[in-house]
Parts: sequence; C-alpha cells; structure tokens
Amino acid sequence: MLPYKSLIQIDRNAPVTLYIQVCNSLISLITNGTLRPSDMLPGSRVLAELIGINRNTIKLAYEELINQGWAESIERKGVFVLSGLPVISSKKLPEPGKKNGTQEAFLWTNKFENATPNKNMQKTRLAIDDGFPDVRLAPVDLLMREYRSISRKFYGKNFLKYGGAKGSEHLRTAICNYLSGTRGVDVPAENVIITKGSQMGIYLASQLLLSPTDTVAVGMTNYIAADDTFRHVGAKLLRIPIDANGMDIDYLEKVLRRKKIKAVYIIPHHHFPTTVTTSMERRLKLLDLAKEYRFAIIEDDYDFDFHYDNKPYLPLASIDHNHNVIYIGSISKTFAPALRIGFMLGPSAFVEAAASLRELIDKQGDTLLEDAFALLFKNGEMERHFRKSLKAYKERRNLFCDILRSDFKNVIEFKMPEGGLAVWANFDKGIDLPKMSENAAKNGLYIDNGDYYKNESFSANAMRMGFASLDEKEIVEALGILHKIIR
Amino acid sequence: MLPYKSLIQIDRNAPVTLYIQVCNSLISLITNGTLRPSDMLPGSRVLAELIGINRNTIKLAYEELINQGWAESIERKGVFVLSGLPVISSKKLPEPGKKNGTQEAFLWTNKFENATPNKNMQKTRLAIDDGFPDVRLAPVDLLMREYRSISRKFYGKNFLKYGGAKGSEHLRTAICNYLSGTRGVDVPAENVIITKGSQMGIYLASQLLLSPTDTVAVGMTNYIAADDTFRHVGAKLLRIPIDANGMDIDYLEKVLRRKKIKAVYIIPHHHFPTTVTTSMERRLKLLDLAKEYRFAIIEDDYDFDFHYDNKPYLPLASIDHNHNVIYIGSISKTFAPALRIGFMLGPSAFVEAAASLRELIDKQGDTLLEDAFALLFKNGEMERHFRKSLKAYKERRNLFCDILRSDFKNVIEFKMPEGGLAVWANFDKGIDLPKMSENAAKNGLYIDNGDYYKNESFSANAMRMGFASLDEKEIVEALGILHKIIR
Repeated sequence: MLPYKSLIQIDRNAPVTLYIQVCNSLISLITNGTLRPSDMLPGSRVLAELIGINRNTIKLAYEELINQGWAESIERKGVFVLSGLPVISSKKLPEPGKKNGTQEAFLWTNKFENATPNKNMQKTRLAIDDGFPDVRLAPVDLLMREYRSISRKFYGKNFLKYGGAKGSEHLRTAICNYLSGTRGVDVPAENVIITKGSQMGIYLASQLLLSPTDTVAVGMTNYIAADDTFRHVGAKLLRIPIDANGMDIDYLEKVLRRKKIKAVYIIPHHHFPTTVTTSMERRLKLLDLAKEYRFAIIEDDYDFDFHYDNKPYLPLASIDHNHNVIYIGSISKTFAPALRIGFMLGPSAFVEAAASLRELIDKQGDTLLEDAFALLFKNGEMERHFRKSLKAYKERRNLFCDILRSDFKNVIEFKMPEGGLAVWANFDKGIDLPKMSENAAKNGLYIDNGDYYKNESFSANAMRMGFASLDEKEIVEALGILHKIIR
Repeated sequence: MLPYKSLIQIDRNAPVTLYIQVCNSLISLITNGTLRPSDMLPGSRVLAELIGINRNTIKLAYEELINQGWAESIERKGVFVLSGLPVISSKKLPEPGKKNGTQEAFLWTNKFENATPNKNMQKTRLAIDDGFPDVRLAPVDLLMREYRSISRKFYGKNFLKYGGAKGSEHLRTAICNYLSGTRGVDVPAENVIITKGSQMGIYLASQLLLSPTDTVAVGMTNYIAADDTFRHVGAKLLRIPIDANGMDIDYLEKVLRRKKIKAVYIIPHHHFPTTVTTSMERRLKLLDLAKEYRFAIIEDDYDFDFHYDNKPYLPLASIDHNHNVIYIGSISKTFAPALRIGFMLGPSAFVEAAASLRELIDKQGDTLLEDAFALLFKNGEMERHFRKSLKAYKERRNLFCDILRSDFKNVIEFKMPEGGLAVWANFDKGIDLPKMSENAAKNGLYIDNGDYYKNESFSANAMRMGFASLDEKEIVEALGILHKIIR
C-alpha cells in the first residue's frame, strides 16, 4: 500500500473542509500518476486510521471522488480509480525554459521578449526620478472621506454595479467643468471617456487610429511609452526635429507633401523629455496642416496643471475648430500615480469607439474611485490640492535649479523649466552617466543612467532630473551626494 | 468697437484668476475669427470700464496675451492682434456627423461602428439580469477599514507610487494561497498577474496568443465578450458543440487532425451561457490534445467560487503538468463588478509578456485597492464574505427554481444549475421573447430579449435568468410580474 499517511496532508485550519482536502489529495495522486487507472483505494476504516480523521470524512471524500468521475465503487470489492481514465504522465515536468532555444508548451510569438524594463519603480528613499509627483502631498484622507460618504449615501450601491465603459458620469461632468474653466476646452460630457491614466488614452488612440504600416509623426526625442505603444500596433515612427520652440512644424509640412501621415503625437506643453513648449505660431500651423491633410493630432497634455510662471498656453484642443484633436490628460500625475485616472476627449464617434474597445480591455473603470474624484472636484478639494502642490513644486524647482547653477556649473547645462516636474540636464561629455548612476546607487541615491532617453536618432549625454518628489532637505542631500560623486 | 461687454464673460467664482479669464476670452475671440490679425484692442482703461473690472487686471491680461504670442504692443499706439498670425476660419464648425456618409475631420477606420451595446448596465430596481452578484452583500465597510489601515500604516505612502505591472505583491501572494487552498492550483506569485476583472485576462491572452487569421476554438454558444475580444484581434472562431457534458472534445480532436488551432477557450465550470460543467474525462483529454498539438488552453474559471452542492471539479490548471493552461479568474464577480480585480496565471515568459503589454495599456492596477483586497484575504474576511454570499445565493437559486418549476411548467424548460448565478432557460417556442421583454419593462421589470446569446450557429428561444442579485422578496415579485405577462 502507498504511504498515505505522508501523501495525504490535512490542514485543520485551511478554509476547505476536511473531506474536500482528502478528495483533492487523492486527485493529485491520480493526476501525478502515483495512483493509476484500476488501482484499488484503501478501505475507509483503514485510511481513516492512517491519517487520523473520522471514517465518515473518508466516506464523504470517496463519494465526492466518484461524483467527480475519478473513481468508481464496485460492490463488495471497494473503491477503484476509474479504469477508463487516460494514463497521465508520471511526474510533474519542470516549466519549459524562459530563454531562447527552449520550447514553450504551446506555440506563440513573444513580441515582448526585449521589452524596455519598467522604469517607474523607484522606491529608494532618495531618488532623482523621471519627474514624478510627491505622493506624500496627496490628500488621501480626503479621498477616504469621499469613499465613506459614497458608500453610506447611495441606496442600492449602484456604484458597485457594472457601469458604462466611458466611466462615471459624475467625474466626466467634473472634468468638463475643470477643463472649461482652466483651459478653454469646451466639450459635452458625452465626448469624454475616463481612462486609467494618460497611458490608456495613448493606447486607445493608437489602437483606433493606426494600422500596421501606418505612419505616426513623433518628436525626435519622445515619450518612450508612447513610442512603444505606437510600435506595438506595428506603426512606423517618423521623427520630427524638436528645437527651443517645440516640434518643427515646417519640417512636418515638407514631409506631408510627399508622405501620408495618419497621426501626429505631440506634447505641446513641456515636451518629453526636453521640457520645451511648442510656440503658438507652430500650434496654429499644425492645426491648419491637420485640416488640410486630414490627420489626427494626439495631444498629450499630461503636464498642463504644472506651470509655475505665466499661465500655460491653451491647448490645441481649445482652438481646434475642425475637430482634428484627440486630447489626453491625466489626474494620476497630479494626485498619485497608483490611482489611475485620466481622460480622453475627441469627436463623438471616436470616443464611442474608444468605449467599445475599452469594454474588451477591462469593461470599465473603478466607479468608486471615479465618483470619489468627482466629489473632490465638486467641493473644490482637488483644485486646492493642485494649488498647494504647485506651490511646493515651484519652491523645489527653484532650489533644485539654484543648486545646479552653483554646484554643477561646468558639468550640467540646462534651462530652468517653466513647468513640469523635471529639468532636462545636458551633462558634460566627460561625465560617464552609467558610471555616475552606479556610484550614486552605492551612496544611497537612485539616478538614471541616461540610456532611457536614447533612440535610433537621438543620443545626447543627457537625462531628466525630477525635482518634485523630493522635499527641500532631500534635494540638498541628493544633489550633495551627486556633487561628491562627480567631483 | 466690438461688444466686449457681452463677448468677455467674467465669473468671479471660477477657479481661474480674473486676468487669465480676460486673456482666454480674447484668445477665443482671435481663434474664432471675431478679432483678426492686426486688429487693435481697446485701451485698458476703456475695456476695464466696459466689463467692470480693475484696469490693472486688463493690463495683466494684455501682458499675458503678448507673452503667449497672440498680440503685440506697438509703442504709443496700443495693443494689436499679431499681424503674422495665420487667418483662422471665422466660426466654429459643427462636429462632423456620426453616421455613415459624412466625413470625419481625420481619416480612420471605425472597427466598432456596429459594436454590441453594453449589456451590463441594469439599474432598474427589479432586473432578471445575466447572472450578476448582489452588490448589497459586498462588505464595503470592511474594504473601507482596510483602506484606512493602509493609508495610515505605510510610511512614505509607497502604495501611491508607480508599482509593477504585475500588480501588488501582497495580493498576488494572497491569491496564490487562496488558489492552492481551494482548488489545487499551485504556482509561485511571480507567475501571477493581477488584472482588471477576468475580461482583462481574456484581452491580454488573446493579444499575446493570436494573430489575424489564427484560429481559436470556442463553444458553439460562448461568452460573448470573449468572442468579441478574439474577433477584435482578427482571429477566426471555430465553434465546437457543447452538450450536457460540456465541450465536445472528440469533435475538437477531429478538427485538430486537419486544422491548426492556436488556442482553445473554455469555461469548464458553468459554461456560458448554458451553465453545463465539462466532465473530468473530457478535461483530461483536452489536456492530452493540448500537449500533442501544442495549443494553449485559455481556462476562464470566473465562476469557480459559486458552487452549491458538491465541491466543484478542480480546474484544468491544477492538473496541467505540461503547462498548456492559461488560467483566468475574477474577484469582481464575487465582490463587486465595479471593483475590477481578476488574475491570470501562466508560464513565466507568458506572464512577463502580459505585464509588458499591460504597461502599454494602463501601466498598472490600482495598488490601494489591490493591497486592501490582499488584507481582506489575509484576515479571512474575503472568504467569510464568499461563504456568506454563497449561502444567500443557494437559497435564492432554490426559490427561483421552485417558482420556475411550479409557475412556468409549460413555458420554461431548465436544469437547476449546480453553481453560478443564472439559470439557462429554454422558452416555449410560442413565447415571443422580445415582446415579453418589452411588456416586462412596462411593468417595471428588466428582462433580456434573448438576442444577446445568439450567434451565426446558435439561435435557441432561450436566455440566462440571473437569480443572485435579487433577494427572496424581489424574486417572488419579479417572477410574479413575468408570470402575469406570459399568461
């Protein structure tokens, strides 16, 4: 007889009843080949004694085993593993290797084998990041208050049921009011879809607009996740130069005369990574070209809420009389990256299609979070938070830039950014960024090695230096460490 | 002079400062063609009087307008709209029509023009739905408690920062323990990705496995959102008959001999919509075929937690020694549809690729919600909730089926489901379902018209009748209304 005492492990604290535990143990003995078709199982009294549980429990387990089609009871003989079961290979195979050269059990093409690793997870205490907000400023207590008020207030708990794929109506209305009040973008709530951060806007837009072999125009340097998303569709990236006035629209025009372009992706405010702002003249010209050549403009305005001096230029979407602009924004950046809320605006048919695609992706957003954000907008808390954090970030930017100017004079060339959460820092050619990054890590400071911003047509010795997620004491400390390393 | 008093609207309660409001109003007069290049703006004193605000505010507005490149100041003459601005068309065009025949401003192909409308939003008081849970049973108070404890506890608020695309480590570990304890599925947490409901699992798997022209095998009737997701990739659906023992695997085998199939999508528990369970023999045979023909099995087990009598069969994933199974599950269904949490398990390389794709879609999930669910699992609340709701649903199923048996004897043919949240009801051919649905709506009851379940190879006079979201009083009331209508 098999050593059932050791083969059948019982856990009296497990959430599963004992007889099911016994049954499941027997099933795994069958499926791993220890028990084979037609093998006889021990009598219930014997097994009960062996593993020290009640005989009725064993009887129930056998009954269950028979009900599930693993075993059969033969009168006056006993219980047997079903004779008709296919013979199962006798041991668990190790999982096929993950590297090239070994085979997966099923055939598929891994398009992500060489994917850029996630750059967003810096959880060391001191990090000069890519330009992330300081989550310590996020008014989580207020969010909790809204959660409580929603969960108390609504009869029938509709906010927990399935909802529409365009997202909470309350939040769509709140965002419309906010966009109209702050940036002259006036659209009805039905032209808005709530997304999970601006990334989902980019994903939806690229899936709807682009087919393999289509061309999308992007900056010479560009937001890497957007590049990746367009490439994932199979689209070709056409790189447009970026200078001190933003994207070179004259260059784009020349290209358009000979080449069909399906969409232009632009971050008119604080282009990623170089932080330049596209001039008004170029904006207007871009809109004209879009009308003439009938391409879509994907305007990624995730940074609009971060502007320290003059008020920022109005977005393209606010002066887009011909409806060429798909406007994408984010609240995740202003509130907290892990609370994924963004929005996308566009022509009705486009937004409806985005909702249909979204239904396939994940049905809908998290209504509770969306409704809570709507309340934060409604009672003014969201804007109070924006103003408060903007003030903090401005002071941090000023201090950060002051130190760069005084302590890194011959090492880092930069222009103080008018907005956004990072400085675009051009390092002296003598500085080996990967080495600097390594040394910094040894001294408790995360800083990038610059590789992230490079692409096939751009390779400056430069990187973004985020100043917003560090408070003033931490800025002094972080730049102090960097200074010591570089010297 | 233009009627500035009516053209420039000031709102002293708006979140935007007055001078920016004036500036933005002037910009929209320029962009809508009311003010044209080289037009002179009124003197600041004049405009101030006209619209009744301080002259310095007007001066600031003009300064801002000039800074943004919309206007220029000519000494001793005044402020003028920039002469070099492109002339902009004189009025806002209506948005291009949404119907065929009219043109969009940009060229795109709308693949969703004829999308199935969202079937998930029944917010009437009485609804015989598709098989939704009762959100009134969801322990939202406990969720709130975990939210509070997380937001108090964690130093540095890391749960608000960017996290990994595979989701909260706490929740992945909790789900591994849960799956191992309840259904014999043993995988390490690194082979799990947290998704937004089971739908995102289906979406990720289909995007990773299928290319256009690939074939995926599905049930003759099948979960409609899965069909739509596969079709969206461009894959061909091959329909396999479903009988009282689930998917006909012998039929599948015959097909495999002559045709390459990339993946089989199966809901072994409570097949949608007919609620049958696939027999153990067929499960084992399916695994054998997958090994031989090297296809992936997408096992959608969203219904596992709802089983009323015997414990349910263990999933394919628990006996998949060859690693052909991609296992998808959901907690949204057991907790609340609007809180989108599901999971997908598979070979490491596959799960890593899913995480990379997910980064393009929406970067990551909502860490706060994921961590809170992890705590609910950890302190046993989640399972207490599962047990409590299972008990309620069993009573509702019994009552619902009793009434169907007694009051709809000659009208509805059905088999009492062993699990799940709906009855598969075959209606007498004499019953016109669309008409019944209409009449029910007039009497305050939502019930489907049966069209939803039809496809190119299936058209029974049948539908799912969800019993779980109604309490016993509501069941009596809802079926009472239906009875009156049908009679």
